Amino acid sequence: MNYQFSEKVSQLQASAIREILKYTADPEVISFAAGNPAPEAFPITAVKEISAKMLEKDPIAVLQYGITEGYTPLREMMKTRMAQADCFDAEREELIMTSGAQQVMELACKSLCNAGDTLICEAPSFIGSLNAFKSYNVNLVGVPLDDEGMELNALEDALKANPNTKLIYIIPNFQNPTGKTTTLARRKAIYALAQKYNTLILEDNPYGDLRFTGEHVPSIKTLDTDGRVIYAGSFSKVLAPGIRVGYAIAPKEIISKMVVCKQVSDVQTNNFGQMLAYQFMQEYDFDAHLAMLRGIYKQKCERMLAGMDAAFSKKISFTRPEGGLFIWCTLPEDCDMMGFCTRAVSEYKIAVVPGSAFMVSESDKTTSFRMNYSTPTDAAIDRGVEILGKLTKEMFGE
Amino acid sequence: MNYQFSEKVSQLQASAIREILKYTADPEVISFAAGNPAPEAFPITAVKEISAKMLEKDPIAVLQYGITEGYTPLREMMKTRMAQADCFDAEREELIMTSGAQQVMELACKSLCNAGDTLICEAPSFIGSLNAFKSYNVNLVGVPLDDEGMELNALEDALKANPNTKLIYIIPNFQNPTGKTTTLARRKAIYALAQKYNTLILEDNPYGDLRFTGEHVPSIKTLDTDGRVIYAGSFSKVLAPGIRVGYAIAPKEIISKMVVCKQVSDVQTNNFGQMLAYQFMQEYDFDAHLAMLRGIYKQKCERMLAGMDAAFSKKISFTRPEGGLFIWCTLPEDCDMMGFCTRAVSEYKIAVVPGSAFMVSESDKTTSFRMNYSTPTDAAIDRGVEILGKLTKEMFGE
Repeated sequence: MNYQFSEKVSQLQASAIREILKYTADPEVISFAAGNPAPEAFPITAVKEISAKMLEKDPIAVLQYGITEGYTPLREMMKTRMAQADCFDAEREELIMTSGAQQVMELACKSLCNAGDTLICEAPSFIGSLNAFKSYNVNLVGVPLDDEGMELNALEDALKANPNTKLIYIIPNFQNPTGKTTTLARRKAIYALAQKYNTLILEDNPYGDLRFTGEHVPSIKTLDTDGRVIYAGSFSKVLAPGIRVGYAIAPKEIISKMVVCKQVSDVQTNNFGQMLAYQFMQEYDFDAHLAMLRGIYKQKCERMLAGMDAAFSKKISFTRPEGGLFIWCTLPEDCDMMGFCTRAVSEYKIAVVPGSAFMVSESDKTTSFRMNYSTPTDAAIDRGVEILGKLTKEMFGE
Repeated sequence: MNYQFSEKVSQLQASAIREILKYTADPEVISFAAGNPAPEAFPITAVKEISAKMLEKDPIAVLQYGITEGYTPLREMMKTRMAQADCFDAEREELIMTSGAQQVMELACKSLCNAGDTLICEAPSFIGSLNAFKSYNVNLVGVPLDDEGMELNALEDALKANPNTKLIYIIPNFQNPTGKTTTLARRKAIYALAQKYNTLILEDNPYGDLRFTGEHVPSIKTLDTDGRVIYAGSFSKVLAPGIRVGYAIAPKEIISKMVVCKQVSDVQTNNFGQMLAYQFMQEYDFDAHLAMLRGIYKQKCERMLAGMDAAFSKKISFTRPEGGLFIWCTLPEDCDMMGFCTRAVSEYKIAVVPGSAFMVSESDKTTSFRMNYSTPTDAAIDRGVEILGKLTKEMFGE
């Protein structure tokens, strides 16, 4: 029979980028295209110990249904932790555990946006979130980034032009894909615009604990006097993505709607992941673990940047992230970025992600691409950057 | 600030039934209101062994990102298993792992239904699925059940009256909440009506492996010559709900849309749960485990029915399920069912779920309520049924 799909999913087209990513299945390809934590970043011994202890002490709790809001000891611990960071106000707010932070984007959008409502995002931004928003048929409006974050004039123009704006979506720290961090002054200015145009902010902070250089910048959530910030946190980058555990903090009314949406989506987040996250923070030195992660990513980022400094054509610019997993490279204006990425992977066997993947529309113009340093080994970083450098010089000169 | 929620979530009202379920937090209350597997149904020793072995052998695989479609060895195993049951055709169909079967309902509805499209369901039906459908603003039309399944005339009337019907949602085996099983003849007739009115069927089969008496009835999926059945399966009732693992089988085109929707919802199902399900079926005797479960539920169901036969007012009728977890009790016509359920829990400390919870609209008339025998202990079944019997006689006579 012929299938008629909903307008929602018809928005989500198969991507041209998939063709490039298919090459990464080839074991000869060095991939800078992923966003996975480094394999050495997982606390394997602790996970084994915790898992054995959990299943010994209370196996039924791991296996039986839990409540939609999340595993209570973990929720309470996160509330305390986030309150200490000035990101949670027990009086006005609630916290739910989610199946990864991705689910926060879906639940927030589903709870707040009708089809046609405007959602403003950074351009470029994380493709997974953009697709979640698109899957609810919102009017997605991108605002370009400068070195301090969203361009304020462009943001205000977007807010003026779209009085039906429900959410401003921001990844303030070591943004995916650019690696950029929004400054405190810019965060304040964005919050002030959200107040002026009476809209909510969705602050997505999966990499916040992975700052390896520079000064900590307070979350937008810490500025939230009005209850207009929904905060998304994740254990994917600081513990393990395969456990699928994230969380949302927001005013109680909003969380209660998100709970209803989560209940009809997957009932609850898996117990094993939640209990593992709780026990790890309870029994082990989480801060030491974070310090270890920052050490790994600092070394890998510096290694990749040093290689790029040495090998890349001077025509190519790139960001120098203070944390997170990604570097954003920009080729000369008007050049064929897709052609570069395609040659890189098909001829030189180096995979990067074309910047168009992260634009509001894949046809939006960009000459940038994303490189990841967390997943490849040091040897792969060295060799891959050198090879890619040759291609940059071949195509764009010294 | 004042929050404006989407039309989607505004459909989902807080339920009057919640007030009744709140009483179940009282440890003195005997709850027949749950739908949890019996605690003794979990293969705890196997889970411990598998978990230790998995984390010893390949901890990174448990912790790192996996693919959206699901853990490949588990998917392949389920394809083989379901093909043997004539429920999977490798040529035309695909199978994805989901975060519980609940997610199948959400993904199917999101992929196929626009707001206002009609989705036909059994009335009563599983509240979690109905709310998932409502959360996409579909026009939900309930068709009453007789002892063989959906009433065919009512189904055809509904199909005629709603030419925009996208899905017919059915729980064919030991339905939640009624415990009823749709006969083979009725399954064939429903499939024929789906053909005649060119609509899809969403077959939700979480309890299919829990038949403890009577003859196996083939799935509607086995009748599917046209590719019009989406099949939802689950490990929640046959292994453990806390691991959140289910699956969907459907024509490839439909699964590929569901994969896109899953990716933006939670990226992937947690690895631990998927790997546990795989290893359990691979290394242990799954059929013997199912036989053990059927033994537990048979005994509990018979115990509850025998108690009800002895203690309940003869004015009350109830179903005699051949499997699953639920019995559906019906009070005399025009009586105050909510009053009965409220007195049962507040005065007699026995919790059941008012039937209105399972109707398309909570205001739809019903004098039925749902009783669960899988969760309470034998002693609780005996005592609770006796007490409830007293109330039935007090309110409705011998």
